[in-house]
Amino acid sequence: MQSSNMKLSEEKVFKDPVHRYAHVRDKIIWDLIGTKEFQRLRRIKQLGTTYLTFHGAEHSRFNHSLGVYEIVRRVVDDVFKGRPEWNEDERLLSLCAALLHDLGHGPFSHSFEKVYHLDHEHFTREIILGNTEVNQVLLQVSPDFPEKVAAVIGKTYHDKLVVSLISSQIDADRMDYLQRDAYFTGVSYGHFDMERILRVMRPREDQVVFKSTGMHAVEDYIMSRYQMYWQVYFHPVTRSAEVILTKILQRAKALYEENYNFKYEPRHFVSLFNEEVTLEDYLKLDESVVLYYFQMWQDEEDSILRDLCSRFMNRKLLKYVGFSPDKKEILSEQLSELFRAAEIDPEYYLAFDSSSDLPYDFYRPGDEEERRPIHLLMPNGELHELSRESTIVDAISGKLRSDHKLYYPEEILLDFSKHEKVKREILAILKGK
Amino acid sequence: MQSSNMKLSEEKVFKDPVHRYAHVRDKIIWDLIGTKEFQRLRRIKQLGTTYLTFHGAEHSRFNHSLGVYEIVRRVVDDVFKGRPEWNEDERLLSLCAALLHDLGHGPFSHSFEKVYHLDHEHFTREIILGNTEVNQVLLQVSPDFPEKVAAVIGKTYHDKLVVSLISSQIDADRMDYLQRDAYFTGVSYGHFDMERILRVMRPREDQVVFKSTGMHAVEDYIMSRYQMYWQVYFHPVTRSAEVILTKILQRAKALYEENYNFKYEPRHFVSLFNEEVTLEDYLKLDESVVLYYFQMWQDEEDSILRDLCSRFMNRKLLKYVGFSPDKKEILSEQLSELFRAAEIDPEYYLAFDSSSDLPYDFYRPGDEEERRPIHLLMPNGELHELSRESTIVDAISGKLRSDHKLYYPEEILLDFSKHEKVKREILAILKGK
Amino acid sequence: MQSSNMKLSEEKVFKDPVHRYAHVRDKIIWDLIGTKEFQRLRRIKQLGTTYLTFHGAEHSRFNHSLGVYEIVRRVVDDVFKGRPEWNEDERLLSLCAALLHDLGHGPFSHSFEKVYHLDHEHFTREIILGNTEVNQVLLQVSPDFPEKVAAVIGKTYHDKLVVSLISSQIDADRMDYLQRDAYFTGVSYGHFDMERILRVMRPREDQVVFKSTGMHAVEDYIMSRYQMYWQVYFHPVTRSAEVILTKILQRAKALYEENYNFKYEPRHFVSLFNEEVTLEDYLKLDESVVLYYFQMWQDEEDSILRDLCSRFMNRKLLKYVGFSPDKKEILSEQLSELFRAAEIDPEYYLAFDSSSDLPYDFYRPGDEEERRPIHLLMPNGELHELSRESTIVDAISGKLRSDHKLYYPEEILLDFSKHEKVKREILAILKGK
Amino acid sequence: MQSSNMKLSEEKVFKDPVHRYAHVRDKIIWDLIGTKEFQRLRRIKQLGTTYLTFHGAEHSRFNHSLGVYEIVRRVVDDVFKGRPEWNEDERLLSLCAALLHDLGHGPFSHSFEKVYHLDHEHFTREIILGNTEVNQVLLQVSPDFPEKVAAVIGKTYHDKLVVSLISSQIDADRMDYLQRDAYFTGVSYGHFDMERILRVMRPREDQVVFKSTGMHAVEDYIMSRYQMYWQVYFHPVTRSAEVILTKILQRAKALYEENYNFKYEPRHFVSLFNEEVTLEDYLKLDESVVLYYFQMWQDEEDSILRDLCSRFMNRKLLKYVGFSPDKKEILSEQLSELFRAAEIDPEYYLAFDSSSDLPYDFYRPGDEEERRPIHLLMPNGELHELSRESTIVDAISGKLRSDHKLYYPEEILLDFSKHEKVKREILAILKGK
Repeated sequence: MQSSNMKLSEEKVFKDPVHRYAHVRDKIIWDLIGTKEFQRLRRIKQLGTTYLTFHGAEHSRFNHSLGVYEIVRRVVDDVFKGRPEWNEDERLLSLCAALLHDLGHGPFSHSFEKVYHLDHEHFTREIILGNTEVNQVLLQVSPDFPEKVAAVIGKTYHDKLVVSLISSQIDADRMDYLQRDAYFTGVSYGHFDMERILRVMRPREDQVVFKSTGMHAVEDYIMSRYQMYWQVYFHPVTRSAEVILTKILQRAKALYEENYNFKYEPRHFVSLFNEEVTLEDYLKLDESVVLYYFQMWQDEEDSILRDLCSRFMNRKLLKYVGFSPDKKEILSEQLSELFRAAEIDPEYYLAFDSSSDLPYDFYRPGDEEERRPIHLLMPNGELHELSRESTIVDAISGKLRSDHKLYYPEEILLDFSKHEKVKREILAILKGK
Repeated sequence: MQSSNMKLSEEKVFKDPVHRYAHVRDKIIWDLIGTKEFQRLRRIKQLGTTYLTFHGAEHSRFNHSLGVYEIVRRVVDDVFKGRPEWNEDERLLSLCAALLHDLGHGPFSHSFEKVYHLDHEHFTREIILGNTEVNQVLLQVSPDFPEKVAAVIGKTYHDKLVVSLISSQIDADRMDYLQRDAYFTGVSYGHFDMERILRVMRPREDQVVFKSTGMHAVEDYIMSRYQMYWQVYFHPVTRSAEVILTKILQRAKALYEENYNFKYEPRHFVSLFNEEVTLEDYLKLDESVVLYYFQMWQDEEDSILRDLCSRFMNRKLLKYVGFSPDKKEILSEQLSELFRAAEIDPEYYLAFDSSSDLPYDFYRPGDEEERRPIHLLMPNGELHELSRESTIVDAISGKLRSDHKLYYPEEILLDFSKHEKVKREILAILKGK
Repeated sequence: MQSSNMKLSEEKVFKDPVHRYAHVRDKIIWDLIGTKEFQRLRRIKQLGTTYLTFHGAEHSRFNHSLGVYEIVRRVVDDVFKGRPEWNEDERLLSLCAALLHDLGHGPFSHSFEKVYHLDHEHFTREIILGNTEVNQVLLQVSPDFPEKVAAVIGKTYHDKLVVSLISSQIDADRMDYLQRDAYFTGVSYGHFDMERILRVMRPREDQVVFKSTGMHAVEDYIMSRYQMYWQVYFHPVTRSAEVILTKILQRAKALYEENYNFKYEPRHFVSLFNEEVTLEDYLKLDESVVLYYFQMWQDEEDSILRDLCSRFMNRKLLKYVGFSPDKKEILSEQLSELFRAAEIDPEYYLAFDSSSDLPYDFYRPGDEEERRPIHLLMPNGELHELSRESTIVDAISGKLRSDHKLYYPEEILLDFSKHEKVKREILAILKGK
Repeated sequence: MQSSNMKLSEEKVFKDPVHRYAHVRDKIIWDLIGTKEFQRLRRIKQLGTTYLTFHGAEHSRFNHSLGVYEIVRRVVDDVFKGRPEWNEDERLLSLCAALLHDLGHGPFSHSFEKVYHLDHEHFTREIILGNTEVNQVLLQVSPDFPEKVAAVIGKTYHDKLVVSLISSQIDADRMDYLQRDAYFTGVSYGHFDMERILRVMRPREDQVVFKSTGMHAVEDYIMSRYQMYWQVYFHPVTRSAEVILTKILQRAKALYEENYNFKYEPRHFVSLFNEEVTLEDYLKLDESVVLYYFQMWQDEEDSILRDLCSRFMNRKLLKYVGFSPDKKEILSEQLSELFRAAEIDPEYYLAFDSSSDLPYDFYRPGDEEERRPIHLLMPNGELHELSRESTIVDAISGKLRSDHKLYYPEEILLDFSKHEKVKREILAILKGK
């Protein structure tokens, strides 16, 4: 259908602090941005609870989605266009997939998904294929266009080159979020020479490759990613907020299941508790809704729900100490018992949390698309896997780094008057780990 | 009381994208930041509806408040300290007032204040002096300390030098928000050489003055402020969202007053409708709560409330055209009549909005503290009013600039099938203005 | 000739700190950059003596010339291309004129031109049309191409649109140097939203115009220019170095004319002294040569030349005080007499210097091309002169600002033992002005 | 002596693009900056021939020296001051050593030192201890102060903490040059969070250590250094210019030694050729002088000197291909013979150049001070060597990376008409390596 080629009479721009401007020339893109499903991403933070550690991290997924779109637009319009390996027919598909790749995210996705067994990738697909404004816009291109967009995002699309633009070890998604999250948090990491990386990207049959003259920019990107993981994404204060959030969701569900009488009916949560969430329910969930309930629940009868919600809303987080993973079992048993002795429910007030990351990997059994190795295009036309050429990437390749923390409510422990002995034992264990 | 001097055993820092770091050495400041009233500012955007125009503008008043604090801290610790005109006893007072100056702001302040006759300055005072965590922390300094902090913020404090740090034509508040709002929106305006301005600030009995060698940095600040007003703060798309917001608040109140039966009881709004808001009610109001109701109201029976809420949530804003203020009366009459003929309620779908700003003023009858002229400290020790020395400030001084727009729902007009003639008349008026 | 269209097999880039990269796709441009006349610009500082005030200002005219080229390239390739008002045949001409517009500059142009009656515009023309590598490259395009390039730079070319890209109140030359000089000096001024200005540029028959939606970016550019003039270009310390430089050039010429026997023959200066500079002589002059002589002259017999050169090389500059221009005559007479009484030659040690600038002008009799007013393209297609639409530009338009300083050697004065009375009189005059 | 404590009546500042401002409060520092030996550093580029690769790299050693001073000033005044491990008496010594650490550098140091057997460290010492303005200023502090400053710079001073501020794997020198060289070249590498590193620096008896909470900033610094080495400092185009420069110096000396009759007497070079350079001679050498001679020598009779100088001045550099070090011997022999057959002197037109770098090392036999490992200060007070804590530093620690290029004059080879067969053989070898 011809509207797929419809250009706006005048280019529209969004002022973007990271890429200066995001440029929109296609009517389809403009219309997708205007749909209510896409506008909903304004009410979901890109970095969940990170704003409680880095106060600047208040930016939304709307922000990031536009950024990923803009990067892909620059790649296809400024770098790939006219190259024989690039199929210009995939242009609009690439742009739509870039823009919509996070469409199914809900509020504080990780915790919600874990506790209520949701899957944002499932909902991305539902929104694209279901009865939505987004689907209506996509259908204007062709009857099978929504399915194609979903396939690219789902990494099942036949043209792996298009998939790799959005899902690989160096894709537009990662390039945007590293820079954007660095910008909004204000950290010094996360910077790399994206201009140079874009300039050396070349389309190949089943992937994007990088001219070897840009190898250092790629190395620098990998190091930035590594630093962002450890400095920002795995920050223990953020993890602490995440732990509390998870416990709130668990507690609310447990109360619901034991027929607790909520002061305020948790209307938006019922289908979550029952694990029967429809698309319509899901689209109503955003961070305003969640925070509204957390605020209300500060007045609930149940002291655990009340306390956890108050901690989250007023940033009275849990403290943490490191632990070695081989002692997790025994630590957990010992501390749980002592907590119970002190009348603190370890189910909600004791948490073991581990993070780990591979800075770069040249193979991995798991999610094949996202973990495929990065290939350099050598002057003689050969493709070499990155770690073969880069001393520094070779050195760190496949090196797993982990961090293990246990979380507990310090001020409750310090308050014990009735349980002085228990308190001393707990503190001794925490200090000794 | 000694705790007023209590220093943290180790300085704490907040990573700030604008000032790099905010440094906290005083226990009182650390404790104030941890209060729930201050944490609440995380749930109130610094720029209200501006994020619907500039998607990066999602930063909160928490962000800004820390920034104002940091600027004042640098002035008193790095620039004023040790100078005979500066009374070191006012240091902690200055820091607290800087940190708390926006404490009483609610969600989307301008619209709420206008429709429900609230006053954020009143609530700032209430939070500082009332039964709150903030008040408890301040009392640790001395019994009259909360009152002093409130007086500085209220501009009634006897030491006008302290007041001028926070409320003047070139105060820490403005210096922070210009830079911060520029950073988050991504616009190129809002930049000026704050380092230089800080370095030339000098304490005088009743005000901060500026060494004349820094005059150009001050000029540049004034121009930045002017640009930010017209580029960002008065942006007509932001004003459009503001108009819709105001109409929602009006409509909800009108429905309440006519005993409309809300599907979902507007619990948090009742005291607003009745104009009997207590401090406790007020502290529960944040943007999550407001957005929660707006989302619920998209399912209300009342078509106006439903439509307005849907417009706000999904960013289907009103269109605008300019108008000349001398024709406002007649335009309003003509269009109202035609709107009614077309079955559109002009009360909610037609709005006249005017913005105006003085880039700099050397006198003004109104709010004396904030509008006092800026004084330069000349090499011979005299004070000269800025516009006397600066050609460029003199040129623009007192020049009022205004902008007038009328807002209307374009897509409703374009849909008229029943009212073709009315539609044509309306469009003719809008085009001809 | 077809080589005019010859594209490089692969785009070449220059890493540029201001524009990120300068992109070269045309073989002609690449070859021009490689000529020895263009490479010579590496040995001429963009800001002459400014590095003695702002130590970062060590960048060369080579730097700036590439920047002007890159701006014009972006205008013609990204903004003008495909618009009916733009003649694609003028593309290469525009690029060459942008690149070469400063080709005839010599070392410390202003002083040399003043003392030795040179004219860099004359030499630009000579280099383009004479027996040079540049001329050879340009001839590859067509026999009349060198003349066309010279005409654009000389502002006599028939297509005034092309001329206005390089010579107007808002041209690529100014946009580059404001940003570049700000970057290298490190001052906070000189920033404006060039991206936005480029996006709103539109070609018209005889000039570039600016869509009115970009008016604020244009206003901001004008303010940046104003600030850069007063903060950087007219800085009195820079002027002081300029004064000494001028006096050195005068002294050397005076000595030559009185047949003074130079220890080291001033080979490169002879044709300057005689005002018979050939193109070949001129091309050998660069800052290394000038500084070489200044260093040698520190060992000359003549105490004035020796002292002035030592001052310049070792940055022992003249001090300054302001004066009012109406007293210049009398001050000059009084001080000259007293200097002579103290055995200081006022010819070389007393200087009156005035700077003045118009921030923006909507008309001027003088150099018509560069001073033509800036026009905004209104939504209805009309052109409005900028100050008609901009309150702030209107306010400062045509406002001349001036600064007047007199320079003198403070440490010589303070050293007077023989002339105590004269010294006191001089100091009294300088203080009283 | 009391002048050592003399403070300026008002702080002086230098606008610095990298650190915003360099602040000077001590009269000694101010006076040192004003000496002619320090001002001479304005005429020596920080990065030698790098400006021929990155046109922005035109900044001088003056620039960098002020930057190193400013970093040390911030460390001692903002971080170390008041800590028991820090001896406030070493403050001025640290500042002077920082400011003067590069004082003995001459023009294009590396090439000059190699060819003429000079040593800039020797001259730094000579300038500090000899009959100079710098020595006079330092003597105002105390009779042994010049010797102490020289000892710190020479790494023989007893207080190794002071030495480590300026000479270690993470010293003020490196922190300044990485950032400064990144700024002026415009590359994206070279950025790291110096603010954070400064904040975690702690004085210990014999070295500066880093609180382990800042480990990631230190890691990032090490990666930045690695990238700058390979992206900027070892860039093959820069190396090519360096090769030509070295060959010019060799050729001039060889000609002098064979009593060649120079058209222009190489006055400033005679003591270099004879390896009898006095301090006075050395101080007259700067880049203007060198470039002056190179320009003159473009007119010499000797075709090799003439050609090499013309190549350097007009940037007609040598081409390069990689080679494997184990084939260097045989390649050199083969090519030398063929070059001679083609009447090209391989002595001047064939060069083998290798670069290598250790990103970080935890031990090394050589220069002990500069290579001492970096130590982290753990929360329990222990010191741990960096690579023990950092996965990533451990991975790259001690990994030597090398690059090998051979340089040759491509356009001469391509011009061969007489030697077609030789040419083909040479090109075959170069292609095959």
